[in-house]
Amino acid sequence: MEIIQVLHMNGGEGETSYAKNSVVQRKIISFGNSTIEQAVVDILCKNFPESMGIADLGCSSGPNSLMLISEIIDIVNSKCLEKGYSLPEIRVSLNDLPGNDFNDIFVSLPAFYQKQEEEKVKGFRNNCFISCIAGSFYGRLFPKKSLHLVHSSSSLHWLSQVPPLLDVDAVVPLNKGKIYISNTSPASVRNAYLVQFQKDFSLFLKSRAEETVPGGHMVLSFLGRTSADPATEDCCYQWELLAKALTSLVSEGRVLEEEINSFNAPYYAPSMEEVKIQVEQEGSFMINSLKAFEVEWDAGFPIENKPELSSRGRRVAKTIRAVVESMLESQFGRDIMDDLFVKYAELVDDYYSRAVPTYINLVMSVTRKGP
Amino acid sequence: MEIIQVLHMNGGEGETSYAKNSVVQRKIISFGNSTIEQAVVDILCKNFPESMGIADLGCSSGPNSLMLISEIIDIVNSKCLEKGYSLPEIRVSLNDLPGNDFNDIFVSLPAFYQKQEEEKVKGFRNNCFISCIAGSFYGRLFPKKSLHLVHSSSSLHWLSQVPPLLDVDAVVPLNKGKIYISNTSPASVRNAYLVQFQKDFSLFLKSRAEETVPGGHMVLSFLGRTSADPATEDCCYQWELLAKALTSLVSEGRVLEEEINSFNAPYYAPSMEEVKIQVEQEGSFMINSLKAFEVEWDAGFPIENKPELSSRGRRVAKTIRAVVESMLESQFGRDIMDDLFVKYAELVDDYYSRAVPTYINLVMSVTRKGP
Repeated sequence: MEIIQVLHMNGGEGETSYAKNSVVQRKIISFGNSTIEQAVVDILCKNFPESMGIADLGCSSGPNSLMLISEIIDIVNSKCLEKGYSLPEIRVSLNDLPGNDFNDIFVSLPAFYQKQEEEKVKGFRNNCFISCIAGSFYGRLFPKKSLHLVHSSSSLHWLSQVPPLLDVDAVVPLNKGKIYISNTSPASVRNAYLVQFQKDFSLFLKSRAEETVPGGHMVLSFLGRTSADPATEDCCYQWELLAKALTSLVSEGRVLEEEINSFNAPYYAPSMEEVKIQVEQEGSFMINSLKAFEVEWDAGFPIENKPELSSRGRRVAKTIRAVVESMLESQFGRDIMDDLFVKYAELVDDYYSRAVPTYINLVMSVTRKGP
Repeated sequence: MEIIQVLHMNGGEGETSYAKNSVVQRKIISFGNSTIEQAVVDILCKNFPESMGIADLGCSSGPNSLMLISEIIDIVNSKCLEKGYSLPEIRVSLNDLPGNDFNDIFVSLPAFYQKQEEEKVKGFRNNCFISCIAGSFYGRLFPKKSLHLVHSSSSLHWLSQVPPLLDVDAVVPLNKGKIYISNTSPASVRNAYLVQFQKDFSLFLKSRAEETVPGGHMVLSFLGRTSADPATEDCCYQWELLAKALTSLVSEGRVLEEEINSFNAPYYAPSMEEVKIQVEQEGSFMINSLKAFEVEWDAGFPIENKPELSSRGRRVAKTIRAVVESMLESQFGRDIMDDLFVKYAELVDDYYSRAVPTYINLVMSVTRKGP
């Protein structure tokens, strides 16, 4: 499974699209707002740039992509007004993997520009240049020292690949019946995931270190955990239930047990400590803050009377489907998707009767060291 | 009709897509190669840039988009090798209107990078950054002084809007039965087209003047004419035949005469003199060369036994359809498209029995003046 080809949020504007099912991620973006504001103030006050490079990594498609940019621009505007600076030229780069629905972003740009011009900044069109860049952020994406502010939300928990979990001598599959680290996962599975995270996150930091100016900031927001144990419910139970939903289709002959055993999610929810260690080891960035927020699995969903949103399980299933369907399809085929997520919704509803499930979202702000 | 919304080459990879029907434009790109080579040599020799900004305006989708970039990169590489320079960082910006199929470009990027890495430049991925920018080139698109080389092929003959052809007192429609300047078009129509071209081309130059560095080059290739008269066959007979094809559907009740009378193509094929005057009047660029090339209407098509390509008329019809369908659909509806282009192919075949139709393609190289 080539992650770069199969990992993308559901495109378009349909019922299962990410555009229509990304309110949780919208909520998560809002956690970072005050941190972004501090970063912008720091950038403008310490060394006011004539031209300010801003990148959003894992921009996806739908309303969230431009909402964040709009918020950052608002902050830059208001701070410039407050301090009496004239507005810097703004270069915005939206990045995601090549399978992302960039067309969706492009067609919404004219209205975005018009709104900014009319409601906010006269001359915006001649001062703000938005481009899209496709490629993995685990590697170089941008020219040298071209960025002042890097943002990423709900993306860095995706690994560059599934950790190598092969044990040629094993009679029993290493992560039998599971698709992510679970209570039953042996130490070798946990370790392989940790090593993959370390390798990826370190490469991420090294790549961005080349691209950010000294004094440049990164505000990174991603799913993680507060516990040392990588198998606690608050960091991975969504995968546990997805494995259960897949397993329920085995008895019906619609999914093969081997297909589940050979599938593992290219995902890792690191602990705060694991994140800190990587930043310190790579050495190019200084941590300003690292905080954890709890967010409910169905956060942000409006109360509506639509039958498909009538239970929390259904809402969560829609959210998860918009994110993981492209990956699951490539392993299990398109045909089972509808039934899989009906089953998943039931399992989530059942789980809600026992718990109030939340994700842990980490928000980290770092500054590029150096003269 | 908002040009920014309705003008785009046919997306995707289907039978009527631009990706599958753009061999004429590929041929036209090749006319500019030696001019691009001269421009690159000049840029590298006069003031070697550490980071070289290259933009392609009207990049469309399909194989042509990356082919041109690949050729420019080849030229940069070979010239650097020849002169003993190390490769500059290359920033490539691909631009088209928001309705362009950018996703098609993005999904082909990983293979493009891999090919470049394997066959041409080791470390290419960390040295060449390709981004896409959506918007009209009749206005600002890029940050100030960020570009060293601007290229555009088969795009600048599109105007920003249909020239205003309203005459409220007219009893008879001004450009009755025609969709572009024709022998029967009155002076007011010809003049409205010329004025729109002047306004657009001047804004194009002014916008690029802001974005290119002093000494930066533009190589612009677009349909034009060598005659003073804007209604000669070599610059507009493709529109004459398209008007005829539309008119043939009037008697069948499938197209209304008023629909033809109220439709005019947002297109202008300027004379060399008209182009020169605009460049001189705007004043930011110096003309290095301006040449005219003839290209046959079905140039570049491989000889194949497919029935849909069995006549020259059919080949030309496929080419034209991939380009103008989005516009025609918005005026005449999707339903008539298949039949319209069958009729168009017949008319072109008939025309071939009397003439060897060619387009005139102008290729102009200019340098940004200034210190």
